[in-house]
Amino acid sequence: MEHATRTAPAGYEPPPALDPLDDDPAFPLHQRGKIEVRPTIRVRDNDGLALAYTPGVGRVSAAIAADPSLGWRYTWRSNSILIVTDGTAVLGLGDIGPIAALPVMEGKSLLFKEFGGIDCVPICLDTTDVDEIVDTVARIAPAYGGINLEDISAPRCFEIERRLQDRLDIPVFHDDQHGTAVVVTAALRNAARLTGRSVADLRVVISGAGAAGVAIAEMLLAAGVGDLVVCDRGGALHIDRDGLHDVKRDLAARTNSAGLRGTIHDALGGADVLIGVSGGTIPESAVRGMAPRAIVFSLANPIPEIHPDLARAAGAEVVATGRSDFANQINNVLAFPGIFRGALDAGATRVTEGMKLAAAEAIAALVSDELAPDRIVPDPFDPRLAVSVAEAVGRAAVAQGVVRGATRSPS
Amino acid sequence: MEHATRTAPAGYEPPPALDPLDDDPAFPLHQRGKIEVRPTIRVRDNDGLALAYTPGVGRVSAAIAADPSLGWRYTWRSNSILIVTDGTAVLGLGDIGPIAALPVMEGKSLLFKEFGGIDCVPICLDTTDVDEIVDTVARIAPAYGGINLEDISAPRCFEIERRLQDRLDIPVFHDDQHGTAVVVTAALRNAARLTGRSVADLRVVISGAGAAGVAIAEMLLAAGVGDLVVCDRGGALHIDRDGLHDVKRDLAARTNSAGLRGTIHDALGGADVLIGVSGGTIPESAVRGMAPRAIVFSLANPIPEIHPDLARAAGAEVVATGRSDFANQINNVLAFPGIFRGALDAGATRVTEGMKLAAAEAIAALVSDELAPDRIVPDPFDPRLAVSVAEAVGRAAVAQGVVRGATRSPS
Repeated sequence: MEHATRTAPAGYEPPPALDPLDDDPAFPLHQRGKIEVRPTIRVRDNDGLALAYTPGVGRVSAAIAADPSLGWRYTWRSNSILIVTDGTAVLGLGDIGPIAALPVMEGKSLLFKEFGGIDCVPICLDTTDVDEIVDTVARIAPAYGGINLEDISAPRCFEIERRLQDRLDIPVFHDDQHGTAVVVTAALRNAARLTGRSVADLRVVISGAGAAGVAIAEMLLAAGVGDLVVCDRGGALHIDRDGLHDVKRDLAARTNSAGLRGTIHDALGGADVLIGVSGGTIPESAVRGMAPRAIVFSLANPIPEIHPDLARAAGAEVVATGRSDFANQINNVLAFPGIFRGALDAGATRVTEGMKLAAAEAIAALVSDELAPDRIVPDPFDPRLAVSVAEAVGRAAVAQGVVRGATRSPS
Repeated sequence: MEHATRTAPAGYEPPPALDPLDDDPAFPLHQRGKIEVRPTIRVRDNDGLALAYTPGVGRVSAAIAADPSLGWRYTWRSNSILIVTDGTAVLGLGDIGPIAALPVMEGKSLLFKEFGGIDCVPICLDTTDVDEIVDTVARIAPAYGGINLEDISAPRCFEIERRLQDRLDIPVFHDDQHGTAVVVTAALRNAARLTGRSVADLRVVISGAGAAGVAIAEMLLAAGVGDLVVCDRGGALHIDRDGLHDVKRDLAARTNSAGLRGTIHDALGGADVLIGVSGGTIPESAVRGMAPRAIVFSLANPIPEIHPDLARAAGAEVVATGRSDFANQINNVLAFPGIFRGALDAGATRVTEGMKLAAAEAIAALVSDELAPDRIVPDPFDPRLAVSVAEAVGRAAVAQGVVRGATRSPS
């Protein structure tokens, strides 16, 4: 290997010429990852070095030390966020660990930049302990303007988000919860309008009480849905059920006002809306028992709880999935770039229900003039999307006074 | 402000039109920071999304979950490092805290990319506790191929580096120690050659026993300097001195074989080399007492321990500083980009003394044909620099067997 030793960097092993993984185009695309860190200014000589690095940078650091609020102006912090996972609930793959989660985090970073212009750094944690996660993320936050939690399993994700938001004065946002909830709410508004109903009048059943199911329930309550039943593997959540963890118990107390017992099949009888975020299976017969002009969001990935064709055959008028190869994809990318763009630009200290509802309204409004059963959400590549969501979210943050140094009254 | 509210992002406050800080060109240059995170691939449509994000990315994550070593190939980890500070020892500014340290970390990230092609993410820690720092950095390491510690005060920096390296199988490198030591060693080799001596024969006095002083002493011992005295504010370190912390006591036991007592002034009598990394002052009279053809590295920034003109007037033949506006700048940027480039390319699990010595040799060799009293180190913008250092470091890592999955014997 005399030749290789001399011309290639020392110790570098070229990949084998023929690799079975390369038959899948996803693998060559992922070689060496999908993101990079780059300077936004060029340093070409010693004069440039003397401004961008020592001694010039020392004057900037000294100014920030004297007035820390200048950190928002003279560092990347006003535009940078961390995306944090512990690798316990990655896509449909489950608990695959931090390193295997990294390609997903890089993908999300790519989407944050492409759609929101945001600098997003992946953090894959070598711990799944709640206390350790909270401490770790809080300690590394100073260089960043927001925290996007990702692919952390329930119920730990609820406590981690709450405790981090209590400790930090920057937005902490678990996208698997709130991003999904925002897009579902937007889609449900349009589906209700399309079928001649108001959101408040809908009877909604959610199948799944994990991160997404809980957040969707919370947001639909905030959006005014009055009749809401959440089901997990044990059937409908109700206040008398034993063995529920805190979050489910709290949810049971604020939903299912009719005190319904039984399976998801029972709950769906006469319901207007099914929102599946469970990964389980919903039979055609259950959809057949729903109210006329039923709305079915079957969001499990990659295999929906019920195939869209079967749902329609069983009487559903509007059907959505989580997949890009069917109509009405409920895709978080419709929400998170614009939500963080708006939060960062407004100097928001958190993401409130009001900001999320504003985001859902903005998403829904983009297709309100062209509503159809296969057109209840905009296309992810719609160029108006992130700007429109960001403006709505930023306005809501200012109106609610959850921005840095907020003293002005809402105007 | 009707107009501004309608056209600017909601809540965004434009900076004042006239700002006294803008009189210093460093400030406009630093607006919104100096680095960004960008995709290395473009996603233009749903087909692209389906490969870079779900479902395609899921196949890559599943493959890594099955064989974690694939993480080095299909993520950015093979080219990414963290730069970690707690803001306690920033440039000449001292303990200014994590947010004020960020412009320096961004500057370093910029240099890592420009000179080494490395993706470097800044982490500014909201803690100065050794245990917390070690735990935090170890937990966020999985997405990165190396850790560059920066601007952490002594003696905590020694323990933090040692404990992190014990826990992680990626290189952990405190640049204020080892980067400085490598460049000083390179410069000293050339200064010795220029003045007709070998490094082994030099009598060296180091002024300063902080991060840089200790690391320089260790490296000069490894490089074969036999007569070495390290001085702190209390004078020469020797084995009988009371009140030394562990690191200084250990150093005292392996240096100052003559058992010298007294001040830096005393120690310099007849010495061949002075290396100042103290931030204090060295009077001309002390340099005048040194041996003929003396070598003086006066590295405190921005104010050298003795001005180069005075050092030369006092008889020094070769003078170096830490400043770009004098000849012979001892600048870490000569070392760290190439050291990490070589370590990453070789899959190194640590940076050994052997790898650092190889780096010093490579740096020194670049100017060996053109040695002069004002030319003992190469220019930072020398295009051969990082490649040459990287090759030497990578070769040393392979030879020493400190690379991932090393089983082959050194050849």
